[in-house]
Amino acid sequence: MLAKTPSPPYYAVIFTSLRTDIDAGYEEMAEEMVHLAALQPGYLGHESARSGLGITISYWESLEAIRAWKVNSDHLIAQRYGREKWYSNFKTRIALVERDYGMNAE
Amino acid sequence: MLAKTPSPPYYAVIFTSLRTDIDAGYEEMAEEMVHLAALQPGYLGHESARSGLGITISYWESLEAIRAWKVNSDHLIAQRYGREKWYSNFKTRIALVERDYGMNAE
Repeated sequence: MLAKTPSPPYYAVIFTSLRTDIDAGYEEMAEEMVHLAALQPGYLGHESARSGLGITISYWESLEAIRAWKVNSDHLIAQRYGREKWYSNFKTRIALVERDYGMNAE
Repeated sequence: MLAKTPSPPYYAVIFTSLRTDIDAGYEEMAEEMVHLAALQPGYLGHESARSGLGITISYWESLEAIRAWKVNSDHLIAQRYGREKWYSNFKTRIALVERDYGMNAE
């Protein structure tokens, strides 16, 4: 469940959100977006957790790959529904991963 | 519950983890580390969620601030217990936040 990302540098899109109480269509959209993102060129993986606050991080080879996903037509619809219905607040941060290390000092 | 971070650039430390089934001392340590991190120079905020996978992101002014927190003596003890007892796997990623935007196109 931890994303298997390559050696840095690569990009992370950190999406932090608070949900409204509107559930209609949300889970289906979230699953579909994970599925579609994974088909995009330059996609490297994703990690997600929610306990009140939701955090989803997707990893990408380049800013160009992130831009292409941002303007994907199905993703644009999901983003509009997100603003209008599903999220009471969110923040998206685009970040360059410069260094990483893991459990066994990998 | 979303971190109120300043305009980029700033740094994010993305800590993704899977827990063991050992609970002794974990919650207390986690709370204490959040408390201690917030006292460090250059700390900007943090966001955390767990649902199976745990994701904790702390935000910092600089790499120097991140390094100083990494070698904080209480934090070093927590890191050792993390490797030995609490986490079955984890990954830490150091990333430069280049851009951000929010709910109201902030």
